[in-house]
Amino acid sequence: MSVEATASSDVVLERPTLWVQRRGATAVIWLNRPDRLNAFTYAMRDDIIAAFDATDADDAVRAVVITGTGRAFCAGADLEAGGDTFMPEEGFDDADAGSLREGGARSVPPDSGGTTALRIYASRKPVVVAVNGPSAGVGVTMTLPGDVRIASDDAKFAFVFTRRGLVPEACSTWFLPRIVGIATALRWTLAGATVKASEALDAGLISEVVPKAEVLDRALAIAAEFADGTAPVSVALTRQLMWRMLAADGPLEAHRAESRALFERGQSADVREGVASFLEKRPASFADAVSAHADDFDWDS
Amino acid sequence: MSVEATASSDVVLERPTLWVQRRGATAVIWLNRPDRLNAFTYAMRDDIIAAFDATDADDAVRAVVITGTGRAFCAGADLEAGGDTFMPEEGFDDADAGSLREGGARSVPPDSGGTTALRIYASRKPVVVAVNGPSAGVGVTMTLPGDVRIASDDAKFAFVFTRRGLVPEACSTWFLPRIVGIATALRWTLAGATVKASEALDAGLISEVVPKAEVLDRALAIAAEFADGTAPVSVALTRQLMWRMLAADGPLEAHRAESRALFERGQSADVREGVASFLEKRPASFADAVSAHADDFDWDS
Amino acid sequence: MSVEATASSDVVLERPTLWVQRRGATAVIWLNRPDRLNAFTYAMRDDIIAAFDATDADDAVRAVVITGTGRAFCAGADLEAGGDTFMPEEGFDDADAGSLREGGARSVPPDSGGTTALRIYASRKPVVVAVNGPSAGVGVTMTLPGDVRIASDDAKFAFVFTRRGLVPEACSTWFLPRIVGIATALRWTLAGATVKASEALDAGLISEVVPKAEVLDRALAIAAEFADGTAPVSVALTRQLMWRMLAADGPLEAHRAESRALFERGQSADVREGVASFLEKRPASFADAVSAHADDFDWDS
Repeated sequence: MSVEATASSDVVLERPTLWVQRRGATAVIWLNRPDRLNAFTYAMRDDIIAAFDATDADDAVRAVVITGTGRAFCAGADLEAGGDTFMPEEGFDDADAGSLREGGARSVPPDSGGTTALRIYASRKPVVVAVNGPSAGVGVTMTLPGDVRIASDDAKFAFVFTRRGLVPEACSTWFLPRIVGIATALRWTLAGATVKASEALDAGLISEVVPKAEVLDRALAIAAEFADGTAPVSVALTRQLMWRMLAADGPLEAHRAESRALFERGQSADVREGVASFLEKRPASFADAVSAHADDFDWDS
Repeated sequence: MSVEATASSDVVLERPTLWVQRRGATAVIWLNRPDRLNAFTYAMRDDIIAAFDATDADDAVRAVVITGTGRAFCAGADLEAGGDTFMPEEGFDDADAGSLREGGARSVPPDSGGTTALRIYASRKPVVVAVNGPSAGVGVTMTLPGDVRIASDDAKFAFVFTRRGLVPEACSTWFLPRIVGIATALRWTLAGATVKASEALDAGLISEVVPKAEVLDRALAIAAEFADGTAPVSVALTRQLMWRMLAADGPLEAHRAESRALFERGQSADVREGVASFLEKRPASFADAVSAHADDFDWDS
Repeated sequence: MSVEATASSDVVLERPTLWVQRRGATAVIWLNRPDRLNAFTYAMRDDIIAAFDATDADDAVRAVVITGTGRAFCAGADLEAGGDTFMPEEGFDDADAGSLREGGARSVPPDSGGTTALRIYASRKPVVVAVNGPSAGVGVTMTLPGDVRIASDDAKFAFVFTRRGLVPEACSTWFLPRIVGIATALRWTLAGATVKASEALDAGLISEVVPKAEVLDRALAIAAEFADGTAPVSVALTRQLMWRMLAADGPLEAHRAESRALFERGQSADVREGVASFLEKRPASFADAVSAHADDFDWDS
């Protein structure tokens, strides 16, 4: 599949470990280390963060698809360094650990999978993950902040952590039980299970299994669902509200955040267009741009 | 169906936008603006709050059913005011925003759907929603604090917010992912999807689909499940414990709240009757009234 | 089945209300009051806590199974004291209520089911519950902090609380909606429902229904899944992370806890063995013992 990406003129970002390609209003992030089965590295963390910074900043991008070149989606942490793989990142010092010192936690290096997952979680555009083949470890867990996951029929999901002397990461101990339920999350992670696409479908880890050749097209079609006829700022706010309120301390917290968002949106050009187009039975044309509404997301202040 | 309600002598509350009818120990709240497909207004918010104040205060009421007159359940916010529909409520001032100033939030008008949802959430009687036809927007989201939702086979659920330049409200960004799961909640709300009864059933938004003519009777039968053989104070406390602990910061918080409730109930006339009737293999007759036990709900003090 | 346990020489702990038997690397806790259908008492609370203290301290134990002798799993609170059953425990005084005074709560006797559930929740070994027959009340709720529940085909689950003038306990108002969903949790507990094994399976309360004669063997097989090829410290940390982050206030809290656990484990002998054995395609042999890593669980400091 990497051939497709290189052959097209629509590559908008090239980084050492990935490309970002534009397909209409959708940005496709191609993990691109096919000789290493797209194994995850510190460079890939930096590149994924850069890719989401780019898609968030570009108002023409309405949704993001993440997939992999070659036969695998992501084989997990690159083990080229062997037993030293999970030693603290070279050059790590306290200054890098900013958020991890909050709450009185001891200063430790931030998990690179978690840093990646938190960036995807913060995306202002919906994220569809097209799992085009086997995935393992962080290759599974970093997809959990995606909004939709679909997989090819040869995909598998290897929760290998307890088999390597590690623990689940990429904030997956928060995300996974909220997606598949606590019972399934415990079963898979405690046993270090490898899960087939059909089992992942039954558990709700993915929402569709499709033939390998059709995974990307199906992901693009789902991405288009989020863009067709919807207001970009409303989509961005809804994505953030829904994920953040999954962590809220009760419905009153949602009431506060929603009231603020409605107060802003209720006086916008978008709602006037939304109501008018509905009453006039015509397609809506929304003008407000996500990049102009950064302050609307500042619910804590 | 409005004919049924008016023809009977058992209407116990009449308000501009709804009636409350008694059917045995169940209070049926009929949203009643059939010419507007029961579209939601500020008056309906006030009337729903008044209806729940009445059902909570009446110890003869053991459960509540919410349904609609005419062919729809609730078409969402009444758009009679067009593009001005979502402007702040006339007469809004800071004094109305009480709860929204907590936590350092800027003062904004409280979402009227959220105010309604929070009142249903606080109900001391179980709430069964009988979705008798199409529903949209707040017509869907305000039902989420109900304990059971069933729907007629022609019902549909329109999550229209992103298509109108708005965001989901009525605390639905808290309730919805907890009912249907985060993946489904994101898919529906980001895309602004309209969901059929069968899809709502598969996702757990509703627990049954029944023929349109039977929706009310089925809802009444479910409401009776909560009243037959159960202690009213126990039901009220259980409803509040279960919903509130869905927002709790861990099992220890539940341990504290449950220990307090058990301490009160464990010395009550009700538990003596509950154990005695069980050991004597006879129906129980519980004497404690919900209205006399308001203090038992004050778990935070 | 009590015969099996007594006949074997592998009983490692005997207490008034239960035995602990070793089956390979699995400890089987047999609730053992068959003449009372294993009804729950204060003594059983103390014995379960002692059993988990023992299984946590013994590094040779990799998993725990809980089951019952005789035809029932656990009939709920022992009602021998009749209407006085739920009076505060004799000898209770403020000193016992330690944790319940936190957060400004009034001092009340701690629910004995909750104390038991919190101990199971804190287990460092995976917990499989083999429900070998009918269960009721605390006999159901105390199983919820187990990681896997399976049941015999004659099992039933009686959520009797509202029918006895009580409320659900054993922290079940926190656990139950997180396992079966809020809608099912409300339906069962408000109505005081008794649920058959097949319905419990559909709702996710249990993950398998097996013939009565095979329940224990199946539970042992599942317990072995958690021990074969996994690192004991990784399993213990993963179990605690997954349960605790179900209560976390967002993915950032998981990021902090996971980063700390990865920092410790990433420099361990276990991860070197885990990676080496994987690269060498041989079984892993993990050396780190759970008992030596108590400090690794101190995430709040």
